[in-house]
Amino acid sequence: MQIYSHDEILNLEKYFRINLLNKISGIKSAHLIGTRNIEGQSNLAIFNSVIHIGANPPYLGFILRPLSVERHTYENIKATGFFTINQITEDIHKKAHLTSAKFPKEVSEFEACNLTEQYINDFPIPFVGESKIQIGLSFQEENLIKANNTILVIGKIETLILPKDVVGSDGDLNLEDVNGVGIGGLNSYYKCKRIGDYKYARVNTKIEEM
Amino acid sequence: MQIYSHDEILNLEKYFRINLLNKISGIKSAHLIGTRNIEGQSNLAIFNSVIHIGANPPYLGFILRPLSVERHTYENIKATGFFTINQITEDIHKKAHLTSAKFPKEVSEFEACNLTEQYINDFPIPFVGESKIQIGLSFQEENLIKANNTILVIGKIETLILPKDVVGSDGDLNLEDVNGVGIGGLNSYYKCKRIGDYKYARVNTKIEEM
Repeated sequence: MQIYSHDEILNLEKYFRINLLNKISGIKSAHLIGTRNIEGQSNLAIFNSVIHIGANPPYLGFILRPLSVERHTYENIKATGFFTINQITEDIHKKAHLTSAKFPKEVSEFEACNLTEQYINDFPIPFVGESKIQIGLSFQEENLIKANNTILVIGKIETLILPKDVVGSDGDLNLEDVNGVGIGGLNSYYKCKRIGDYKYARVNTKIEEM
Repeated sequence: MQIYSHDEILNLEKYFRINLLNKISGIKSAHLIGTRNIEGQSNLAIFNSVIHIGANPPYLGFILRPLSVERHTYENIKATGFFTINQITEDIHKKAHLTSAKFPKEVSEFEACNLTEQYINDFPIPFVGESKIQIGLSFQEENLIKANNTILVIGKIETLILPKDVVGSDGDLNLEDVNGVGIGGLNSYYKCKRIGDYKYARVNTKIEEM
């Protein structure tokens, strides 16, 4: 076993530490967040930190790095009050990765990365046409994490769009059916293969029965 | 396409909504959080919301449901100041799922679910012996999410333990090498298969070269 203390982690070579520390938390969700500025210019950025916050009412959150450099996604969400969260499929994961390049503010990553800027009904922010799970949200709140000035942004789900045939009669959604991928660290992409599906666990459940 | 509005989501049948809304955010990390109360009784609970907060200094976070019922993990972290985050492998994913049953406070899920309670060096909280990524943390801060009273708990990494041979010379860690799994919603488990590994994206990168 390799045991690192807190101080040994602090003393690791910078890129070794970034790689390792971003990967130890396991598989991460993979999303493109769409926004527009007040002039209507669209923006698209990859995030690996979208998390479930609540089902009733429905909320999602994501983590933003500190605002020490320009954060177009954050600025646009604060300016318009709306954003979209679009699942990354295997088909578009390379294009999605490319959105992380530092494109100038006046360039839309939809166009630069060859992803479809799709408007659905009257939702004011574009969705990614290739995504099979498209979620339109309104800004709900932000929470500053004092430890390192990252921000947890919370959005309320205003609209949810997905293919008709992928949702089971009990609300189940198999990520394989929507070609969903996950991210390891900042740069590794993973396919997901379902290995088990278990009932709500109860104290007297035997593991074999699950 | 199936389009749900916010109000239509609110009006879905309860368990359908819970299933669907927990699954639309994609693949989630899969961890067991270990704690002890002040009498030394150990506790182990499954979480699907562990997220990377920072690498320097190293922080992880996780989401706790509202404190409207007993939350042993939260109470123990607040009482002792320490906890462990242990990656769930394919080998133990059924046992890990079983920890979600409502065991009484005086029962340790380590014993009830047949998982190894391992103490490493002088860290005061047990790790899961079967996990290949074991992380010991101190409580750093908590952030109440006002929208629905969930809590983002942040821990500082005090010690990180993993097999010697899984970390690359650049800090890379392939989740396949540690048999890591992910969770869909609350009850579906997924294996991860790496499909690509790309360089830091730059504006002039061609997608084909990534």
